Amino acid sequence: MINKYPSVLLENAVNEFAKLPGVGRKSALRLVLHSLKRTQEEVENFGQALITLRKEVNYCRICHNICDDEVCNICSDSTRDPSTVCVVENIKEVMAIENTGQFHGLFHVLGGIISPMDGIGPGDLQIDSLVKRVQTGNVNEVIFALSATMEGDTTNFYIYRKLAGLNVKVSIIARGVSIGDELEYADEITLGRSILNRTDFNA
Amino acid sequence: MINKYPSVLLENAVNEFAKLPGVGRKSALRLVLHSLKRTQEEVENFGQALITLRKEVNYCRICHNICDDEVCNICSDSTRDPSTVCVVENIKEVMAIENTGQFHGLFHVLGGIISPMDGIGPGDLQIDSLVKRVQTGNVNEVIFALSATMEGDTTNFYIYRKLAGLNVKVSIIARGVSIGDELEYADEITLGRSILNRTDFNA
Repeated sequence: MINKYPSVLLENAVNEFAKLPGVGRKSALRLVLHSLKRTQEEVENFGQALITLRKEVNYCRICHNICDDEVCNICSDSTRDPSTVCVVENIKEVMAIENTGQFHGLFHVLGGIISPMDGIGPGDLQIDSLVKRVQTGNVNEVIFALSATMEGDTTNFYIYRKLAGLNVKVSIIARGVSIGDELEYADEITLGRSILNRTDFNA
Repeated sequence: MINKYPSVLLENAVNEFAKLPGVGRKSALRLVLHSLKRTQEEVENFGQALITLRKEVNYCRICHNICDDEVCNICSDSTRDPSTVCVVENIKEVMAIENTGQFHGLFHVLGGIISPMDGIGPGDLQIDSLVKRVQTGNVNEVIFALSATMEGDTTNFYIYRKLAGLNVKVSIIARGVSIGDELEYADEITLGRSILNRTDFNA
């Protein structure tokens, strides 16, 4: 246990770092001591980058992705297909899907998933605005790309019910054995799902 | 690989976080997104704590430990024994030794160890001021408490040579099998050293 700090300023900085998720007090101290070896300008750039982001961050009024303007660069890209909307939990998933280069539609960022354990209900998420996007017209397909967890399934089902009656196709990304995985190590549920959802083999 | 950021502000913040040691781009993004969920005040406290520390940090003019005044609270503590000086690499080691409650002398913080690989020579460390502390008088014993690595040994030896001729006892913290360790897993060098440096057994 490290608990005696020789300086109040040091202790404050360590306390602040230790509030970050996954950063314990020892790591916090290590990061703070590293900062002391950097120039004053570097440390100010670090602190200000975060403060500025928090102060000036914008969310796209269409898909709620983080952006610098009113509409994000994906929603404002006229080469993309606005009739396909991929529903994701957060901006990290937007970036992960964008990196695959396989999706050319638009996104809808929920800002989380329904999780009663964490006190997150449907009202905390951007579900109503998704329903409105679909109601106002030219969305043909909504793709669920949430985590394959109970919370993800619950959220999928909740949104599916909300979209019932609207003229829209609802799909979900494929679940199955990961590429590169050995079959004997795949869990039974994933393996079972990947057998049920088998696709035509193209040699 | 995550490389397309939907916002320049976001990208800046991620870049800054990713400069911290041991923080990759994925962790950096996770930390930045977490910051977006905190209040603006919390984020400002975080950024400012670090900026303020970097700007206003002081080092004790006697032992070079971090402190808020001119002399640290250890050096200015009259109940401590000023005749015993423990040489450590950094403030982390001061805190670790303080937490043992076993040392009642003063410290001398070198600010690193001699490491040609990292371009750190004796001139970059607070070695001269240690020699001066010993020269000016009432230090009876210097205890080396550096890492048990080649760099630590080199630094010990360099300082030992510098102190030669001065009327001071030089000692080094004990090396041996860690308490709680099973003997069969101890490495041979440590085990060998702990046999050579055996102490009287007090039942």
